[in-house]
Order: sequence, then structure tokens, then C-alpha cells
Amino acid sequence: MRSCGIIVEYNPFHNGHQYHAEMARKLSGADIVIAVMSGNFLQRGEPAIIDKWTRAKEALNHGVDLVIELPFAYAVQSADYFASGGVKLLQDLQCDDLCFGTDNQSELDYELFGNFVHNHQKEIDQAYQEIKNNGMSYPQQMTEVFRKFYPNDAFDFSSPNHILGLSYAKENATYEKPMTLYPLKREAAGYHDTKIYQHFASATAIRNAVFSEELDQVKRVLPTQVAIDLSSSPTVSWEEYWPLLKYKVLSSSLVELREIYQMKEGIEYRLQEAAKIADSFHQFIEQAKTKRYTWTRLQRLATYILVNVKQCEIESVRQNNYIHVLGFTEQGQRFLKEKKKNLSLPLITKISKNLSTQLALDIRSNQLYQLGSDRILEQSFGRFPIRVS
Amino acid sequence: MRSCGIIVEYNPFHNGHQYHAEMARKLSGADIVIAVMSGNFLQRGEPAIIDKWTRAKEALNHGVDLVIELPFAYAVQSADYFASGGVKLLQDLQCDDLCFGTDNQSELDYELFGNFVHNHQKEIDQAYQEIKNNGMSYPQQMTEVFRKFYPNDAFDFSSPNHILGLSYAKENATYEKPMTLYPLKREAAGYHDTKIYQHFASATAIRNAVFSEELDQVKRVLPTQVAIDLSSSPTVSWEEYWPLLKYKVLSSSLVELREIYQMKEGIEYRLQEAAKIADSFHQFIEQAKTKRYTWTRLQRLATYILVNVKQCEIESVRQNNYIHVLGFTEQGQRFLKEKKKNLSLPLITKISKNLSTQLALDIRSNQLYQLGSDRILEQSFGRFPIRVS
Repeated sequence: MRSCGIIVEYNPFHNGHQYHAEMARKLSGADIVIAVMSGNFLQRGEPAIIDKWTRAKEALNHGVDLVIELPFAYAVQSADYFASGGVKLLQDLQCDDLCFGTDNQSELDYELFGNFVHNHQKEIDQAYQEIKNNGMSYPQQMTEVFRKFYPNDAFDFSSPNHILGLSYAKENATYEKPMTLYPLKREAAGYHDTKIYQHFASATAIRNAVFSEELDQVKRVLPTQVAIDLSSSPTVSWEEYWPLLKYKVLSSSLVELREIYQMKEGIEYRLQEAAKIADSFHQFIEQAKTKRYTWTRLQRLATYILVNVKQCEIESVRQNNYIHVLGFTEQGQRFLKEKKKNLSLPLITKISKNLSTQLALDIRSNQLYQLGSDRILEQSFGRFPIRVS
Repeated sequence: MRSCGIIVEYNPFHNGHQYHAEMARKLSGADIVIAVMSGNFLQRGEPAIIDKWTRAKEALNHGVDLVIELPFAYAVQSADYFASGGVKLLQDLQCDDLCFGTDNQSELDYELFGNFVHNHQKEIDQAYQEIKNNGMSYPQQMTEVFRKFYPNDAFDFSSPNHILGLSYAKENATYEKPMTLYPLKREAAGYHDTKIYQHFASATAIRNAVFSEELDQVKRVLPTQVAIDLSSSPTVSWEEYWPLLKYKVLSSSLVELREIYQMKEGIEYRLQEAAKIADSFHQFIEQAKTKRYTWTRLQRLATYILVNVKQCEIESVRQNNYIHVLGFTEQGQRFLKEKKKNLSLPLITKISKNLSTQLALDIRSNQLYQLGSDRILEQSFGRFPIRVS
């Protein structure tokens, strides 16, 4: 069975995602589409608007055959780590192809780029070291570095999906049997676009509509079942967790805050001062952010604080990774059975108490996610993969 | 100026407290009455129903001349530590007398008892060691011990105010110039009494009435201004802090929980299990409590968890105690001026940033107390003693 992987968040699932799954199958000619999906906390450091089981079910009903959870330790990370986690899981599943959306307008060959970086890592690192700490932002620095090596390409490290695409390409090139890459140009709605187009809209625009109770305005860009889920299931945003985050920042000593993963350079002082005066999560980040600590970086740090993440926990997952199945179609289940014996990572279809240590970070992040609403169901123990026929 | 001390919580202030202040003045013949009052967290491990500044104002309007805050490190403690903190502050203020309520019905001479314990501490400790770990509760054990030494007195260690009285007496006897003790028998309403008597009621009964929105039922046992405060000012109970406590217990590792002051004997496991299933603070304590971990002990532990209290912080306050003035009448202010020069502890009338380290625990507990309601005002910085003329 030929398989095509996609690495996704579905926050929430919309028509553009269905199009992505369909095109993945079509472009690659694969029999099954495997989605590696972030769990309840996302790449940009946000709680998912709707829980991972619901999002997995929606994906399985709209073109995906198998949904694997990207562990928290990889999901809530900048592009390179996020991509490395997704590609690692797909590689272990012996996936043939990888299809990803891109907002890049040039005709970059991602595979060539991946191979180039893989073969010139030393020189690139050196070039990066030379311009490091020059006051530019990370995207600006990377653009600068790659201009040296690719003088004819206009590298744009400011569009998030393109950056992810480059990260997938780099990670993929490090494997013995790299997947074939299928970049898919985004139609209609850009990543940060907040307007609602005819049939497609950005997830940001949809979330805004949900939180301002204007779901009707975005119904036409959502599969019917997703619109129902978004109106009947509990939806959460950072604001639901703000009282807990504020409490955590104010009740912790500076020494304790410094033990949190990625807490660096004295940002803990700024965070405590901001927490004292802020009345909302939005205000908190606005208050704390600097040129160096961008919104997304701070949001990710806020997630680490909320979930009380330590460096050693991230390392532990990197050393003991696993494949946690959120759901499958019949095809997806058949694929899993076929590949099962050749997996190097443990396959988890049910979280039992004896996995409490290995999956501690995922289990805890899910428990804390549940505090966002009384109506969010248990996320770990006793949950079986969703079957869609 | 002759002064009589009282050690109080005022949760909330009621007619019985006014009677106590009046009788303190009358019995001792003192010119001024000094109340050492718990701040925003109380002896039994509860947030105060109404903030300390409001309670101090009410006390000053109803018979008290000077209100000193009992630091968190002494206030949220079992009887002996609570009493030692209160007596220490009054001793430093060169207070002459101490008047306390008692629910003991026998005619015990507290001063004699205090002296006896002071002079026989070794034998008492030995007797206690002999019966320790016999499965009896601490009050039962103490009753047993004292029966040996006072065979003719019916010692009852189960009534909270009597226990506090004994603790005051013991602590007081250790000073060079002990205060004269004036035990005041409680009239009408017992400590745990939940019925509303004609003019007196227990604070428990009043809190219940406030939380069930039946303030009218208890108005006659409250000074008018207190009834107004209780209906217009923010009032809180443990339930307001329950989401934060639950989050803290679930987000902390067992190692982190073990660092909390008084976390012993594996109770951290029970607490995590209880937090997972409990939907309210009440359920949480019900679920976690055992014969050994009584309601009050667990409630105190819950307060330490909420406020993130470490052993070293308690010790630090014990070694660097201070007198924080919450308010005074003109008489009280005159008294302070008179005694000022002879104080051995620092006198604090305004909390400035440079006291942030010494008063860290009090400041933090106040900040966290504020999370119980949007309407609770800043409790530390920029607050001056309340003046009542």
C-alpha cells in the first residue's frame, strides 16, 4: 500500500484541510493518507480550539485514513523540531510521500534544498554563527544566510508554511529513504488572512468567528459535521487558561520559573511583572513581548509554564518516542496491521497506567487541557482509536 | 498606657468579637486594646471571607485601638505556632495583659498551667514520646499526657479555643515578664455552633449565611457596618481558589509537591488522586482525608500548596519577624509612638519594594488571595494603616 503523509494541526478542520488530504492522495497516487496531528496544544503555543479526538474524527470523515498524535514534546516547538517529530513518525511508519501546503510563490525545489542543507550543514552553521546576534530576527537571519548559498532564489522565511516546508525538506533529507515531497500551493486563503473567502478560509478567521459567536459566517468553509462540533462541543482559547497561568506565574519563585523549559535571559522577571498587571492572556503577552521575544515565542513559553514543562521531559520524549494512534478508517487499520511488525517505535493504541511514566508529559498536558472546560472529556485513559468506516 | 492584647481572626467580625474587645478592656483595666489579627489566610487553612484591611477597619470601629497583622508563617499553623506568633508580637509591643475566649467549662488557672508546662517541659515531652504513635489523635494524646500531671482536672483538648488558651499560656510563661491572662468564657454560641442565637453567633454560622445568600438572617449578630461590608465587599471561600489548587496539584510533579511545607508521609499521592476526581474543594478534602489527615490539617496543607510555601520561607519569617500595622485609633497611634523606640522587631507601616524579600511570603499570599475575586483591592504595596478617630 502506497502511503502519503501530511503533518497537521486542524485548529479547526476546514474545507482547505479536506482539499489538502484529497490532493495529497491525488498528487502522490497513494492508497492511504496518514495525518500526524498535534494533540491538544499546538505549534504556536496555543490550546487547540477543540480536542484532539474530535479533530481526529473529523479528519477521518474527510479524506484521512490514519491519525497519529504528534507528542507534545514535538508539537509545541519551532518549525525545525516540529517538522523533525512529524517526519520521524512518518518515516517509522515507512511512509512513501509527504504532501504539505506552502505559501511560497517561487518555484523552489524542496527536495534539492533539503539535500543541499544536509550536505552543507557545516558551512550553513558557520554562516549563521557569523551573523548571529546582529540584532535581526531569526527569519531575517536565515534569509540572510541562504541568500549566500542560493543567490538566485528569493528566500522568504517570513511565511510560516514555507518555513515548515523547508524544515520538512531538511529533516526528510537526513533519512536513508527520503519521502517524495509534494508541495501544495495554498489557494485563496493565506495563513494570516482573516477574511472569509467563498469556500476556503484560514483557521485563524474561523477561530475568530467561533469566539465572537459568529459561527454562521464561516459555515460555508466548514464540513457540516465540523460546524456542528464547533457549536455543540466545548471550544477553548488561551483566555480559559489565563487564570491558571496568572496563578502559576505569580505563585512561582524566580528560581522555579527558571526551571521551565526555554525560560532564558531573564524573561521570568518580565513575565512576573506582566502577570501582576494583565487582566487577560492577550494583555499579558502584549505587555511582555519584545523584539526578541515575539508573540509566538512567548505563547509557546506560556504553554510550557502552564504545563510545567522541564527540559528533561522534552529530552525524555526525544529518546523514547512512540506512535500514539488517535483513529483510523478500515484502510488505515489495514495499513497499520501491515506495517506493525517493522516499526521501531512502540505503537500505542490505548493509554494504560503502565505507560504513565513514558507518556507523562502528554498525559499531564491533556489533564490540564481539560481544565479549560467542564465539558471536555477524559483525553488519555480508556480512550481507544476512533474507527470510521 | 496599660495595654491588653487579643489574638484574633475576625472571619468575619461579629458582636461576640466586639464583646471580647470590650471585656478585654474592662477585665484588665487597660487603656488600649491591641489585636494581633491573621491576614488573608487563617489558622484553620482558609482564605478569610473578607480582606484584612476591611476586617481591621471594622475592629477599630468596635473597640480595638491597634491592629497588627500576624504574618502568614504564624497565622496558618496549628495552635502552638499560631499562639507563639501572637504572643511574641504582643511581648515585643510590651503589652501588659492578654485576654482570650475559652470554651472550657472547668476553672483551670491558665497561668499556673503555663508555668507548670514551662517548668516540666522535659517530663511532658517524655510522656508524649511514650504514648506517641499509639493510633490516637493528637488531641487525645495530649489529654492522655496531661491526665498524668493533672489527675484532678478534666483536660479537654477537643475544644479549639481552649487549646489556643493553653498554647497562649505556655508561650506566655516562657517570657521574662509574662502578660496577665484573662480567660473569657464564651457566652451563648460555641465555636462549631451553626445556629444563630439572639445577639451572638459563631463565625461559622455567619459565613454559612453569607455563602447561602441569607445575610438577613444574621444581621442582628453583626455590627451594622459589618453587615454592609459583607453585602457590598468581595467575599471569598475556598471554592473560589479551587480551580487554582486543582491546577497546581495536577500540574506539579510528586517531587515538586514534596517540596511544599508539611507535605509528608506520601500524602502527595492521595492529593493527586483526589484532585483528579474532585469537582469542588469540599469534595477534594472529603476524598483525601484520613484519620491521620484531618480536615483542618489538610485544609492547612491545601493553603501551603496554593501559596507554594516552602519550609525555608517559614523559617525565614521566624528568624526575621516584624510588626506590620494594619490600623489604629488615635489612642493606638499614641501607644505606638510611645513604644516605638523600645521595639526589638522592625515596625512596618508601609510595604515598599525594598521589603519584598523579607515579606515575600506575606506579599505572595496576598497577591494570590486577590485572585479569588476581581474586586479585591491591592493588599500590600501602597497601603497605609487605617486610621479611625
